[in-house]
Amino acid sequence: MTGFSFAVAATDGAARTGEISTPRGTIRTPAFMPVGTAATVKGVYCDQVRATGADILLGNTYHLMLRPGAERVAALGGLHRFMQWDRPILTDSGGFQVMSLSQLRKLDPDGVTFRSHVDGAMHRLTPERAMEIQGLLGADIQMQLDECVGLPCTDEDTARAMRLSLAWAERSKRAFEQQPKGRAVFGIVQGGAVEALRIESARALVAMDFPGYSIGGLAVGEPQDIMLRMIETVAPELPVHKPRYLMGVGTPDDLLEAVGRGIDMFDCVMPTRSGRHALAFTRFGKINLKNARHQDDPRPLDETSDCPALRDYSRAYLHHLIRCDEMLGPMLLSWANLHYYQDLMRGARAAIAEGRYEDFKAAAKAGWARGDLPPLG
Amino acid sequence: MTGFSFAVAATDGAARTGEISTPRGTIRTPAFMPVGTAATVKGVYCDQVRATGADILLGNTYHLMLRPGAERVAALGGLHRFMQWDRPILTDSGGFQVMSLSQLRKLDPDGVTFRSHVDGAMHRLTPERAMEIQGLLGADIQMQLDECVGLPCTDEDTARAMRLSLAWAERSKRAFEQQPKGRAVFGIVQGGAVEALRIESARALVAMDFPGYSIGGLAVGEPQDIMLRMIETVAPELPVHKPRYLMGVGTPDDLLEAVGRGIDMFDCVMPTRSGRHALAFTRFGKINLKNARHQDDPRPLDETSDCPALRDYSRAYLHHLIRCDEMLGPMLLSWANLHYYQDLMRGARAAIAEGRYEDFKAAAKAGWARGDLPPLG
Repeated sequence: MTGFSFAVAATDGAARTGEISTPRGTIRTPAFMPVGTAATVKGVYCDQVRATGADILLGNTYHLMLRPGAERVAALGGLHRFMQWDRPILTDSGGFQVMSLSQLRKLDPDGVTFRSHVDGAMHRLTPERAMEIQGLLGADIQMQLDECVGLPCTDEDTARAMRLSLAWAERSKRAFEQQPKGRAVFGIVQGGAVEALRIESARALVAMDFPGYSIGGLAVGEPQDIMLRMIETVAPELPVHKPRYLMGVGTPDDLLEAVGRGIDMFDCVMPTRSGRHALAFTRFGKINLKNARHQDDPRPLDETSDCPALRDYSRAYLHHLIRCDEMLGPMLLSWANLHYYQDLMRGARAAIAEGRYEDFKAAAKAGWARGDLPPLG
Repeated sequence: MTGFSFAVAATDGAARTGEISTPRGTIRTPAFMPVGTAATVKGVYCDQVRATGADILLGNTYHLMLRPGAERVAALGGLHRFMQWDRPILTDSGGFQVMSLSQLRKLDPDGVTFRSHVDGAMHRLTPERAMEIQGLLGADIQMQLDECVGLPCTDEDTARAMRLSLAWAERSKRAFEQQPKGRAVFGIVQGGAVEALRIESARALVAMDFPGYSIGGLAVGEPQDIMLRMIETVAPELPVHKPRYLMGVGTPDDLLEAVGRGIDMFDCVMPTRSGRHALAFTRFGKINLKNARHQDDPRPLDETSDCPALRDYSRAYLHHLIRCDEMLGPMLLSWANLHYYQDLMRGARAAIAEGRYEDFKAAAKAGWARGDLPPLG
């Protein structure tokens, strides 16, 4: 196949399961995309990531444009070859991290100028440059440049940023037309926590006819109910035959709630970041391996898992590795968490296909609520 | 097979190749043992370590007795199960690291009392307790407790420590008799840089009839020629049908020189420690991946290697990972270095079997002397 396409195979309420087809491979949805910030999913080999069931990775334009630089990655054969991942890659536009990480930034209608958090050098992103960088990286799915405001935010600022993002959406889409066939660019719905602005944003983007739509500006610290209300507001505005990507989300609970509201794609650093901080996401809920209760426990995190990180190593060993600050601790827990996130997506896809998504979601939540295994006799 | 045995299959000058048989598997000699200090080879999965060709790992009694504790490891099923390595493990006695790491130590004829570098708690090692700990860990090859002096050292101190080590050798051997069949304990030749003391130590240990002999107290900062002279002094005193283990050595050059003088076993943290510091050992010599000369280089460290870490990732990518302080950098370089060390041992074994060891050694050294690949175009 040579193009980019999306087909919904089954729905269950608002939840959908299907496949995104790209020249580099198929993405089963709902899909969770592990984050390979700086051309590596922190502490995990690409073949492990793939074995967890990931069909696509996310790369961060902001990080990659600073180090090693988009032109350098292109000269080295593109991001896929650089990091040894031959399946689809989605890149963000850099806009979000310009806001959250750069030391100094100045926004104007044409773009944003900022100082690198790495070495203090000045850089500029415009919609055109954002697409150029993502093109140089070779991303299969690219994001328009947007302006992302933090929450809470005044309605006025939210509206201004949303309308600037719409103008940049048009310019991004036009600039993207230079790129090889088979790639896609997504528009990003903004509008903060204001329903009317979210609807205005979604309708304007749909009128531009993007191959897919992201919901941005959420998971920035707001309560979950606001995030879910925004999804409920936006999703019905989006065409059913285009993928919907909720950016930067989230906890296992966030994922299941968002899938139930019609979201197809997610990315989040949580599985790997938590793994580096001794936290494991499991069907028993979140487990803190730093806790001394694990120090004599011969049981693995989940003996029923088919992931070696969850199945083969005792809690006592994981606790020991963390206590000794051994690299293998974060390596194993990041791997385990990525596997659990993919397990959730596998479970969601199967449940939607069989029309039992609400039961699946309730069972997962009940497992988390029951909590961890009781201590051994 | 149920016992511990060693058979020399071929010799070439003083160099030997053969096999140590243990109930947990065969160790092809000359053998390099990766160091799994705290029940993990830092940054490398056990299945990767095995795939490099390692037949045996080393564990550090000092580290393991402090964290997680020998009794705890035993209750969890032993060190092999704890760290998911089912082949042979050799443990040191803890003596060396009591001297080099503990904050305070008091030696008496019966043993040594020391303060943990981790939490300040007081601990005691005697020959009997050192064997008990190694037995609890389940080590296949164990070391007598010894006193290791730094170099340079007065002859008087060297002699005193060597004779104390001989007394502890007898006690260690006696205490070891409690343990299951199929395990082995090695005596450790001491004597600093004093030939007469080395000979006295070796002869006394040989009279005790150990299943194998270590040469300790070297690789503690002395010039290579002193180390090699001590090997030349000791090796002829040792029975040809028992394995000879040079503790804590060394660089690739040290290994080839020592193999040429009849050494069968080595351990060293150098491959993993150097890997964590951006250094790769290759057939082109030592390569510093921090160097900006690699930043645009699409070539792998060694395209002819069958190790993915050496073959599949560009120097530009490795440089990028190190520059961004990404875990995958140390992970890949530690893996690559362990593979190169095993490549050297593979090459040495084949060369000895074919009577061309001197040529093999000369070719390896010539490769290192030629240095790294010239820059591209």
